Amino acid sequence: MAKGGSKKSLRGRAGRMQGGRGSGRATHGNVRLWGRHAVEAALMNPARQHRKLWATREGVASLGGELPADFPVEYADVADLARLVARDAPHQGLVLECEPLGDIHLEDVLSGDPSRPIVVLDQVTDPHNVGAIMRSAVAFGSAAMVTQDRHAPPEGGVLGKAASGALETLPWVRVVNLARALEQIAEAGYWRIGLAGEAELDFAAALPSGPLAIVLGAEGEGLRHNIAAHCDALARLPMSGEIESLNVSNAAAIALYAAAMRQA
Amino acid sequence: MAKGGSKKSLRGRAGRMQGGRGSGRATHGNVRLWGRHAVEAALMNPARQHRKLWATREGVASLGGELPADFPVEYADVADLARLVARDAPHQGLVLECEPLGDIHLEDVLSGDPSRPIVVLDQVTDPHNVGAIMRSAVAFGSAAMVTQDRHAPPEGGVLGKAASGALETLPWVRVVNLARALEQIAEAGYWRIGLAGEAELDFAAALPSGPLAIVLGAEGEGLRHNIAAHCDALARLPMSGEIESLNVSNAAAIALYAAAMRQA
Repeated sequence: MAKGGSKKSLRGRAGRMQGGRGSGRATHGNVRLWGRHAVEAALMNPARQHRKLWATREGVASLGGELPADFPVEYADVADLARLVARDAPHQGLVLECEPLGDIHLEDVLSGDPSRPIVVLDQVTDPHNVGAIMRSAVAFGSAAMVTQDRHAPPEGGVLGKAASGALETLPWVRVVNLARALEQIAEAGYWRIGLAGEAELDFAAALPSGPLAIVLGAEGEGLRHNIAAHCDALARLPMSGEIESLNVSNAAAIALYAAAMRQA
Repeated sequence: MAKGGSKKSLRGRAGRMQGGRGSGRATHGNVRLWGRHAVEAALMNPARQHRKLWATREGVASLGGELPADFPVEYADVADLARLVARDAPHQGLVLECEPLGDIHLEDVLSGDPSRPIVVLDQVTDPHNVGAIMRSAVAFGSAAMVTQDRHAPPEGGVLGKAASGALETLPWVRVVNLARALEQIAEAGYWRIGLAGEAELDFAAALPSGPLAIVLGAEGEGLRHNIAAHCDALARLPMSGEIESLNVSNAAAIALYAAAMRQA
């Protein structure tokens, strides 16, 4: 898997099709990414099929590498780019249309490094939150993120911008049945801790020394009953009683940090 | 200071002025808040002067208490409310126009409980991030948030929604000169740790046993040179090298958690 951020040449593959300009949406079957970190990481990702880059001169100059001479880039001004992205999205002079990434199978993750935690999201649908969780997951060495197909945001620009490149590097496993995926995760030897504000056990005290899966539900609703029932333990972060819950990406960041600290 | 969330009567004061309906912005000098937690907390806050509540029947029913009989509420449908808030903002059937909160002085915070950390933000301008930081700050018992007047988002609906009620309970000190504020914080006996990705010291190892101020800069730029120079230590969170930085609200949440853990 390609790593974003290093200063090597940016390699892309020229697309046969050009994206619909001015539509504000990617052409059918493609995704549109924007922002320097998100686009740079996508350009560096050999698993990504690139269609077209719209960019300002400054945007291209901000990239950590050279575009191949034959790369399909169209120079545009800031206002043109604004029409290609979600309203008020901070594109930073770079908008990339590309194919979505291929499927990643849970089995492949479960046969990987068991010391890296797996993040499981139950009905977390806000793309800003899911993107920020991917960014923290990469920062703290997670093996993968697992979501349920019907209850997760699609791969796209808002999520990609919030992920700040992590969309390209964190394996994202989409499953049809999250309870079944949690069974497979347990069969592979992972201890599944669900974050739940009403739990009595403290998260840090609940951490196993071995393989770990962190299960997070949507803000407000929390974990669905059947998903909570598929956890080995439910635990809470040690908050004051003044506020009901944390933002879900903040809770995920803390849980990932606490998990990383246990190995230190 | 009022605490949000408990089931006591919601007390408001009827305003003499009614907000401009359909404008999408609060009338001059007022702020418009939306979302259940944000509005409920504002209604429970005796320091808040309320002007008017626009709400659906379901929105009012979702509040944890009764509105006083003379409260200026206007029932509306979901589409009407959507015209009163920022585009696509999740108002949850509740939009409140009210006066901004009064100024809070740094001196008053510094004469308070020194075991509660102070969060200092240097040019963090995104209202979603600042709101989420306020929410985490309350969750982990912070004394206050300090920002620089010219480089912070205004009190408003997007920030209030992200803060999920914490806007009403966390003292927010706005200063003209952030470096001078950091000097006052040090004079009061606080140890000022600036988060900086390039620092060598680990944040948890940098934590003092005494009073703490956590200083965070904007993503990308980080702390300004003069602000970093006003910290007693610069420290980093222990991230893998795969990603440059965390989302600033995620970094704040981890730092606040780590600070809370040191007392445990």
